[in-house]
Amino acid sequence: MKFCSNCGESVVLRIPEGDNRERFVCDNCHTIHYQNPNIVAGCIPEWEGRILLCKRAIEPRYGLWTLPAGFMENGETTEQAAMRETHEEAGANVEITSLYGLFSIPHISQVYMLYHGFLVNGAYEAGCESLECRLFNEQDIPWDKLAFPVVRETLQRFFADRKHGKDLPLQRGEIIKHPKRES
Amino acid sequence: MKFCSNCGESVVLRIPEGDNRERFVCDNCHTIHYQNPNIVAGCIPEWEGRILLCKRAIEPRYGLWTLPAGFMENGETTEQAAMRETHEEAGANVEITSLYGLFSIPHISQVYMLYHGFLVNGAYEAGCESLECRLFNEQDIPWDKLAFPVVRETLQRFFADRKHGKDLPLQRGEIIKHPKRES
Repeated sequence: MKFCSNCGESVVLRIPEGDNRERFVCDNCHTIHYQNPNIVAGCIPEWEGRILLCKRAIEPRYGLWTLPAGFMENGETTEQAAMRETHEEAGANVEITSLYGLFSIPHISQVYMLYHGFLVNGAYEAGCESLECRLFNEQDIPWDKLAFPVVRETLQRFFADRKHGKDLPLQRGEIIKHPKRES
Repeated sequence: MKFCSNCGESVVLRIPEGDNRERFVCDNCHTIHYQNPNIVAGCIPEWEGRILLCKRAIEPRYGLWTLPAGFMENGETTEQAAMRETHEEAGANVEITSLYGLFSIPHISQVYMLYHGFLVNGAYEAGCESLECRLFNEQDIPWDKLAFPVVRETLQRFFADRKHGKDLPLQRGEIIKHPKRES
């Protein structure tokens, strides 16, 4: 951020009075510009024991596999965001059963919220951000071609929990920065 | 938003190519400015069966009672944000037990994440954003002087769930706009 989005003058980075963190501040119109984490909402869509993954048609991680998920928009609930992203990326309607994964990724200021749900009628098709969508059994998950560490972490915990056969617990965690990757 | 925070030129509101929502777009440097919901993280701090509430020393809702909570900051986890806010507003350290309340408030684009936890040693004191902090039994909760609908909803569900005596379930919900209030 270089300029004030309210008045167009230059902003400076400093700790405002009464605060304890640096913010971009406008000395012309006195607006303080707060920057906060974003929510990435998505689903673990299940159908007949298999999980639906999407092969990314966009950067970052073009060609790698992920769960359908994306940035939550203003004016929606977290559940609506998760269902919308699943429909946009995988052409699938899901009936949400529970919140399964809640992962903070502090080094990129994102919070992932991944809901478990069942596909409606088993229908899906690749959306414009996906090269392909496919249902995978646990043993066929492309572990070495997953797009993001949070997807790997979620799927590993999910399959382990599902073996217990009870209600899925909420899994919380933090994704630490990998030394050689951005997220 | 009126000006581009990257180059200082005026922005326009329109749907970018490949998108389906209006965004503030800069035709000079071609930056698209996304605006997304904020997370409000906080705690339901418990001590010897009582719940710690804070009487607000700031607007909005000056003088009304709330759970300690506030905007999550970049670079922290949701749990860290909840504990930080509880320390800032109520001078209290909490040991988090579980995520209890997850509430979307779409009309103000906020997502509340309220963790249940126990006070460490029962210690607390009003922070600079609180006029007073106090532990309340269920029957003493100032129901007609609560600051926000999400606080009421959380406390009502919490006391009902706690009567069952088992592990607290995750409560999810949506807070609808009250016709006469902003949130």
